[in-house]
Amino acid sequence: MTVLILTSPQDITADMVVGKLHERGVPLVRLDPADLPGEADMSAEYVKGDFHCFLSTQGRMVSSRALSSIWMRRPGEPAAHAPEPSAWLSAETGQALYGMLYSTTARWMNHPQPAARARHKPWQLRFAHHSGFAVPPTVITTFPRVAEEFAAQYGQVVVKSLSGPPRAEPPVALPTTLLDPGTDFTGVAAGPTLLQQYVPKRADIRLTCVGGRLFAARKLSAPGQVDGRYGETGRLWEPAEVPERIARGVRDYTDLAGLAYAAFDFAEDAEGVWWFLECNQGGQFGFVEVETGQPIAEAVAAWLAPPSPPGRA
Amino acid sequence: MTVLILTSPQDITADMVVGKLHERGVPLVRLDPADLPGEADMSAEYVKGDFHCFLSTQGRMVSSRALSSIWMRRPGEPAAHAPEPSAWLSAETGQALYGMLYSTTARWMNHPQPAARARHKPWQLRFAHHSGFAVPPTVITTFPRVAEEFAAQYGQVVVKSLSGPPRAEPPVALPTTLLDPGTDFTGVAAGPTLLQQYVPKRADIRLTCVGGRLFAARKLSAPGQVDGRYGETGRLWEPAEVPERIARGVRDYTDLAGLAYAAFDFAEDAEGVWWFLECNQGGQFGFVEVETGQPIAEAVAAWLAPPSPPGRA
Repeated sequence: MTVLILTSPQDITADMVVGKLHERGVPLVRLDPADLPGEADMSAEYVKGDFHCFLSTQGRMVSSRALSSIWMRRPGEPAAHAPEPSAWLSAETGQALYGMLYSTTARWMNHPQPAARARHKPWQLRFAHHSGFAVPPTVITTFPRVAEEFAAQYGQVVVKSLSGPPRAEPPVALPTTLLDPGTDFTGVAAGPTLLQQYVPKRADIRLTCVGGRLFAARKLSAPGQVDGRYGETGRLWEPAEVPERIARGVRDYTDLAGLAYAAFDFAEDAEGVWWFLECNQGGQFGFVEVETGQPIAEAVAAWLAPPSPPGRA
Repeated sequence: MTVLILTSPQDITADMVVGKLHERGVPLVRLDPADLPGEADMSAEYVKGDFHCFLSTQGRMVSSRALSSIWMRRPGEPAAHAPEPSAWLSAETGQALYGMLYSTTARWMNHPQPAARARHKPWQLRFAHHSGFAVPPTVITTFPRVAEEFAAQYGQVVVKSLSGPPRAEPPVALPTTLLDPGTDFTGVAAGPTLLQQYVPKRADIRLTCVGGRLFAARKLSAPGQVDGRYGETGRLWEPAEVPERIARGVRDYTDLAGLAYAAFDFAEDAEGVWWFLECNQGGQFGFVEVETGQPIAEAVAAWLAPPSPPGRA
């Protein structure tokens, strides 16, 4: 049985998992959909109810019957590296590749459809509450007056992006930002704006869930630091215990969302409460593993590996 | 309770359903996501586990609690009509709008996630067979030799697009096309190509499934006509009986796919066998209703309407 990893060649986090799969003797194929067609090829036959397909890349060939699992890491746009790329060729290639992969019985980390839903922050807030997490009061609005009233009611309020920073070269940072008192909310009418009550935090918590195995890490906040992702503080991520209530919530949330992998961000307040900020279904884990020594890549490899890996008793 | 219809103002098929909902006295809001923000506004508050949101457009306001169902017809790109449109504004607006709608308990026709999977033709072929339909042998490949061998084995073979015609102005037609004997398959290496054994057909069948209600229509083929969607033949769609085996298959397929609405295309051969060609989760139905008189818009309205519509006993 073979593991299929869909990602770009530059993905060094995938390299960590590839190393662990090699140690386990698990066959794998790594494919960037951007290389199909050209560097990679595919074929799928549907004849009399029988379905047979194979992928071929870098001199390796894998049959759909041999696919135990598929890891959607950082796949490129299908056909992006074709000699004559076009939106239509990407659409055709994406339909062919993913349609074929959806036809297999392989397990997904994560399947693109639940992943697409789970990316929506409003949905996350709703189901975080369902799962028993503490969630800071939040509003998403195009009404300046609603934004103004929310800020007046909750005092310290942050604004954050719903979809992440715009794609741009060079990349643009868009950190969560504390609003000044007296902020003018007129601009809210130009686009839905997410405001959230600020949680005065003593630490950021990153909790990585890999098929039910939980790895939590804590990084103490610097005074006045709002967004833990930005600003060098000299502090490192350290392993943290997962409170039982949080562990239950994570299981509920990932079951409900249909996610095999998820990276949760919490803000830990002075009383030790973990406030749910967001859950990134494709969040990075390399930086946590490097600083904490937690075996996250090994857990991903273990999840992707077939039940009885070849070459092992 | 209110029905939300997400579509463009030009959608005349939606007009048919709007008329039927008006006859039933069912409140509805019609919104083109392209008009948000600007012509439309939204607000969603997530406070202490309580979720309250509303949409406002054309002087109408609807609360998320009042939404009984959502019809995804032909929605525009979010924020496309904004004064300063951008890919990032569309991403932000889409996350806000759909994330909010995913947080409701409304029923969807169709929910975007199962709809996205169900668009993939390779997946359709696989699950059409599972559902008991006759499916013509098909290959999707980037290998010229595989294409050549498939054509040699199956004799009369058609080529068709996986993703539909390219988006272009003026629109481009891309009909299913019968291949000449001796076709050169070199070009297959440039992009995944779908070849299918040609079904010599006496008629095209369009079967529209609306929440379990089936409407089948038959149009006799003109001699030599390959793609029933193209070419004026003077023949009209006429109502057709649905064979029991097909009805079972449609129920299995739509259950498995998670679709409330689906438009199936079959080719009927000389023996009366219905060969599955494809299933379009967002297929048009207006042309069938106009020619056959089948009450499809009424069925859509009935599905969308809340169980006990206001204004009725």
